[in-house]
Amino acid sequence: MNTTAAKGHILLSLTGWDPSIWVKELSQAAPERPVKLAPDGETDPDIEYAVVWKPEASALAKLPRLKAIFSLGAGVDHVFATPGLPDVPIVRVVSPDLTTRMSEYVVWQVLDHQRLGPKYRAQQAARIWEEDRGQCAAGDITVGIMGIGELGMDAAHKLRCLGFDVSGWSRTPKQVEGIICYAGREGLGEFLASADIFVVLLPLTPDTRNILDKDLFARMTKRGPLGAPVLINAGRGGLQNEADILSALDQGLLSAVTLDVFHEEPLPPESPFWGHPKVTLTPHAAAASVPSSLIRPMVAQMNAYDRGEPLINLVDRKAGY
Amino acid sequence: MNTTAAKGHILLSLTGWDPSIWVKELSQAAPERPVKLAPDGETDPDIEYAVVWKPEASALAKLPRLKAIFSLGAGVDHVFATPGLPDVPIVRVVSPDLTTRMSEYVVWQVLDHQRLGPKYRAQQAARIWEEDRGQCAAGDITVGIMGIGELGMDAAHKLRCLGFDVSGWSRTPKQVEGIICYAGREGLGEFLASADIFVVLLPLTPDTRNILDKDLFARMTKRGPLGAPVLINAGRGGLQNEADILSALDQGLLSAVTLDVFHEEPLPPESPFWGHPKVTLTPHAAAASVPSSLIRPMVAQMNAYDRGEPLINLVDRKAGY
Repeated sequence: MNTTAAKGHILLSLTGWDPSIWVKELSQAAPERPVKLAPDGETDPDIEYAVVWKPEASALAKLPRLKAIFSLGAGVDHVFATPGLPDVPIVRVVSPDLTTRMSEYVVWQVLDHQRLGPKYRAQQAARIWEEDRGQCAAGDITVGIMGIGELGMDAAHKLRCLGFDVSGWSRTPKQVEGIICYAGREGLGEFLASADIFVVLLPLTPDTRNILDKDLFARMTKRGPLGAPVLINAGRGGLQNEADILSALDQGLLSAVTLDVFHEEPLPPESPFWGHPKVTLTPHAAAASVPSSLIRPMVAQMNAYDRGEPLINLVDRKAGY
Repeated sequence: MNTTAAKGHILLSLTGWDPSIWVKELSQAAPERPVKLAPDGETDPDIEYAVVWKPEASALAKLPRLKAIFSLGAGVDHVFATPGLPDVPIVRVVSPDLTTRMSEYVVWQVLDHQRLGPKYRAQQAARIWEEDRGQCAAGDITVGIMGIGELGMDAAHKLRCLGFDVSGWSRTPKQVEGIICYAGREGLGEFLASADIFVVLLPLTPDTRNILDKDLFARMTKRGPLGAPVLINAGRGGLQNEADILSALDQGLLSAVTLDVFHEEPLPPESPFWGHPKVTLTPHAAAASVPSSLIRPMVAQMNAYDRGEPLINLVDRKAGY
């Protein structure tokens, strides 16, 4: 089906990632589509598709033939942050590989809190042999997932497989077998009272920016086996009020947090999060975007769109994700 | 169905555990069966059932009416270690609660190694923000489970749910859907070449004592995404040659280990395992025996046996488990 007849060009605009492996995968998957790197490619009039991760400001503003933008991350807030964003379809990544990796991270961190990882590591460092006889079982814990999309549903399924109860919250009402779903601002209070460990997989939109603040933490009223609730943010740093998280930890509103994302990345060396005893921190590593898994389905979409077929996994511009 | 007519007595013999909660659960579940504590109860002629965890030497030798011994742990090596063990049926614990807890531990530790927990914790301590771009996915890893009984099968199922490939090894041939099973000494070599992370859930018997030694580590030939294999022992300390584990870590035959059990417990403060950078250590906490989950089914078995029904989950004395 593929021909090597020249097709429109691809602009690749990445911040913080080495482009070479992406260029290689694109060139192999779409040899007939020349790949141009930002910033030089930003004025190439033959660009038809842009493949982006945190594109530079105005990177997408001067492309007369641009047909669609492909995000390399599950979230697309980095696309909306681009000034002069043209009115073309935006395609999110939906990849079994990315989804699986995110669920690994979620289950790993939920288990690390439920199974008292920080406590036992501190005991090992202090050479203390002491079993916690109050160890709860997975079935004693409800995990509340904020954001019930592709990622949230897969994580919920895997947490249930391990025996956890799961509740969920999303902007619009969802029905997912085996999990209690709450929706919208009116469902938020009940959701926040339902769980012991909160996993945040929300998209970053004007509605969700800074949603993780002291008011929200104060509404997490359940005092289960872990004491105060645990917060795991594997979504976006912009979802969280970082000063409020530190206060909530110090006041005992939260018992512990795992943060994979921050307002400023890389997290500055002077940040108090690095050395906080109740913080587990990973460097935006929850779910890697792997070129070999993402590029071929993306090129298949470009070919299909060129043939007049519709794009899938389109972003809703009004909802912002 | 229960009557309060006096029945035979129960001997409770525990080492290292507080007996009070067990006495309370037994008294509530079997009010008609007086509970006697070791060592005083060891000469009570009315003892019909013994409920034990690491019973004292000769604790079971002087009980003329003893009908059966109930182990409070999944393993029964602690029962066979009792001098003068009478020739009565021995019942192991098979409890969904215990099984689920063990699977939590296994999945937690497998994920902690696969998702580079030790590396990211060291980076956090050093304030280094650096994503490992070589992060493998669960599907890139085969977990090899040594011991495919109740615990091993449940752990295998949950690991597969998360996307790991699973292989298994047991004394006698097993068939388990979705996992490649090897059996006996003749299947051991192929099994050891099949996996990246080894999870040990074997019973401790004369056949398996010290099975985890340098010869076995040398036969783990796969060099997958984690470099050298990872060993997780949640079975018994007696399965492992501890000097060989330390040598294997230092020589790179093993890349890391998680040990929940040791020859000597509590692990002495001077043990080199405490401070070894490639060792994760927990204080025999993988799967707690929880009184409220274990005692009622046990008393139900006593009542059934008194009525002439057979005991279930019997230990095979010849196999030693």
